[in-house]
Amino acid sequence: MTAKLNVVPFVSVDRMMTLVHHIGIERFLMDLADRLEDDFRRWESFDKTPRVASHSLEGVIELMPTSDGNHYGFKYVNGHPGNTRDGLQTVTAFGLLADVATGYPILLSEMTILTALRTAAMSAVAAKYLAPRGASCMALIGNGAQSEFQAMAFKALLGIRELRLFDIDPAATRKCAANLARHGFRTTICKSSMEAVEGAQIITTVTADKQYATILSDNMVGAGVHINAVGGDCPGKTEVQREVLLRSDIFVEYPPQTRIEGDIQQLPADHPVNELWRVIAGIEPGRRDGRQITLFDSVGFAIEDFSALCYVHERILETGNFDELDLIADPDDPRDLFGMLMRSPAAVAA
Amino acid sequence: MTAKLNVVPFVSVDRMMTLVHHIGIERFLMDLADRLEDDFRRWESFDKTPRVASHSLEGVIELMPTSDGNHYGFKYVNGHPGNTRDGLQTVTAFGLLADVATGYPILLSEMTILTALRTAAMSAVAAKYLAPRGASCMALIGNGAQSEFQAMAFKALLGIRELRLFDIDPAATRKCAANLARHGFRTTICKSSMEAVEGAQIITTVTADKQYATILSDNMVGAGVHINAVGGDCPGKTEVQREVLLRSDIFVEYPPQTRIEGDIQQLPADHPVNELWRVIAGIEPGRRDGRQITLFDSVGFAIEDFSALCYVHERILETGNFDELDLIADPDDPRDLFGMLMRSPAAVAA
Repeated sequence: MTAKLNVVPFVSVDRMMTLVHHIGIERFLMDLADRLEDDFRRWESFDKTPRVASHSLEGVIELMPTSDGNHYGFKYVNGHPGNTRDGLQTVTAFGLLADVATGYPILLSEMTILTALRTAAMSAVAAKYLAPRGASCMALIGNGAQSEFQAMAFKALLGIRELRLFDIDPAATRKCAANLARHGFRTTICKSSMEAVEGAQIITTVTADKQYATILSDNMVGAGVHINAVGGDCPGKTEVQREVLLRSDIFVEYPPQTRIEGDIQQLPADHPVNELWRVIAGIEPGRRDGRQITLFDSVGFAIEDFSALCYVHERILETGNFDELDLIADPDDPRDLFGMLMRSPAAVAA
Repeated sequence: MTAKLNVVPFVSVDRMMTLVHHIGIERFLMDLADRLEDDFRRWESFDKTPRVASHSLEGVIELMPTSDGNHYGFKYVNGHPGNTRDGLQTVTAFGLLADVATGYPILLSEMTILTALRTAAMSAVAAKYLAPRGASCMALIGNGAQSEFQAMAFKALLGIRELRLFDIDPAATRKCAANLARHGFRTTICKSSMEAVEGAQIITTVTADKQYATILSDNMVGAGVHINAVGGDCPGKTEVQREVLLRSDIFVEYPPQTRIEGDIQQLPADHPVNELWRVIAGIEPGRRDGRQITLFDSVGFAIEDFSALCYVHERILETGNFDELDLIADPDDPRDLFGMLMRSPAAVAA
C-alpha cells in the first residue's frame, strides 16, 4: 500500500509500453510464464468464478474477478468484432488489483497490451507441457493483433523460429511478417490454412470472427501435433472442426468456463477434458507420446490476469514507472467524508 | 465518445468535490433523485444481476454491473468495518461507464463520495413516496460517514430541518451535529436510540457494525412512521428487530439481492415485499394511510450507481471538469497492437 491513502498507482498504455521495453519483451514473456506456472500450481487457493458477461448485438463486456485471499484482482474486457471497421480495437481491457485485508485498490492498469502478453505467455506455457519435443515450426493461422505476441512467446519459451503464416486477409499476414522479420524468425507466407500447417509441429489458431468457423478441418491435422486454439473464445465462436477435437486430448484452463466459451462448446458437456493446472502441478501427465494430438482450448481465465497484474505491480514498485491516481477519498477522520467534501478548496472556490 | 480514442475521462476525488460544489450539494442531490426516479421508472429495460461479491474475514469486495443496452456501468466497492481503526474508510468505491456498441469506457470516476450522495438521494426518493405527509422531524441513528448526506438529501427533497441524532460514539454525533449546523438544521443530540425516535416521523438507521444488531426494537416504533433502514446491507448485518419488520410494509430495490443482504434476511424467503420501482412507476401505491409503518430496506443496487455515473458523465462533458486517462491502447491499425508497442518512443529509449 502506498503511503498516500488517496493515491492508486496507475499504469497507462504509455507506462506499460515503457515497462515492456525496460524489461525486454522476451524477458517479460518469460517472467509472466513463470508467474503463470507458479499460480497454476496453487490453483486450488484461488476463488474461481466464471466471468460476468453482458452480451449485446455488437459484442460483449466482461468482468473477470478472482482472489487468492491476499490480493483481489479483476479485469474489464470487451470483445466487439465489428470495432475494427471503425478503427477501434476488437478487444480492450484494463484491470485492478486490491488488498483483500482493506479492500483498497493498489494498482489500476491498462490491460490491452498486458492481455496480449499474458495470453501469449499462457499458450507457450501450455505448449511447454504439450507440444512434441524438438518442435521448431509453428503454423500461425490468423495474423491479427494477437498473432505476433504468440510468435514471440513461442520463441522465448520454446525456441520456435520458423513460422508459417496465413490469414484470409493478405494485408494482415504482410503486417505480421514485417513485424516479426525484425525478431529473428524465418516466416513463410502461405495461401491457405492447409498450406500453413504443412510440416508444422505446432498449430496456433488465433482468428477473430465471432461465428462458428472451421479454421482447422479434420484432414489438416496429422498425428503428433499440438494445437494451440486461441481464437475460439466465446459462445458461438469456434475455430476447430468437431472431428479434430474428438481425435485430440484436450487441455483447458477452467472447465465450467471453457465448456461455454471454448472450442469444446461443440462437444457434449461430459466430454473428458484435462485441467492444465494439474499438468503444471505434476499431478497428471502432459504429452504422453509422439503420436498423440494435444489441443489447448485457450479462452483466458481470471487467474491469468491476476498473475499478470501481480507481476506488473511488483515491477512498477521497483522502477517507479507509474502515475498517481487520486481515486480514493481519504478524509482525516474516516467518519467525516462530509466534512472533507464541505471543507475542500473546491467549496471555497465555488 | 471522446475524439482521442486512447483517452478515458477521469473524475478524481478532487474533481468530484469541485463538481459537487459547482452544482451545489442540494441541487446535485435533487438532480440525482430525478435521475434515479427516471431510471426506476424504466426498471425493466435494465440488465439486472445480484452483485458479484468476494468475501474475506475482514470484509467484502464487490462488483456491481448493469446495462440499459446503450450504456454499461459497474461499480467496484469494498466494505471493511475494521478499516476505521487504521484510519481508512469502511467503504471506498469507483465506477466505470462504457459504450455498449463498442465496449469502450467513456468515464472512470471516484465513487466514494458519489455513492454517499446517491445512497442519500435514493433514501429521500423512497421517503417521498413512503413517509407520512408533512413529516418534519427525522431521527438519525448512526452518525458516521453517510449520516450528513442522508440529512442533506431529506432536507433537499422533503424539507426536513429537524434532526434527532444518536450514535453509540458521542464523538460521531458531535461531528455530525457540527457539520449540519452550517446547513440550517435544528439538531437534538440524544442519549439513546429510544430518545432519538421520540416525535420523529422518519427514522433513519445508518450504523456500520458488521453484525446482527438491534438498533431499532419493537417498542420504539409507533404507528405511522417511515423507517429508512440503510445500514443493514450485507449478509450477517442487520439493524431492525424482526418484530418491527413484521409490522411494516417493506419496500426494496431488487428483491433477490435484498433478501440476502438487507434487514429482511431475517424473514422467510417468501415474505411479501414491495418493489420500489413499481411505486415510482405508479403501478402500485406507496404509503396508503397515516397509521401504516413503511420501511425502505436499502441495500443499494447497481442501477443507482448507473444513474449516478450517467449524471456525472453528462455534467463533466458540459463543464470540462475531468482529467484524461491514457487507458486504451489505440494503434493506428487496430490489428497492429504489436507494431504500436514495438515502434513506441519507449522502445527507442530502451
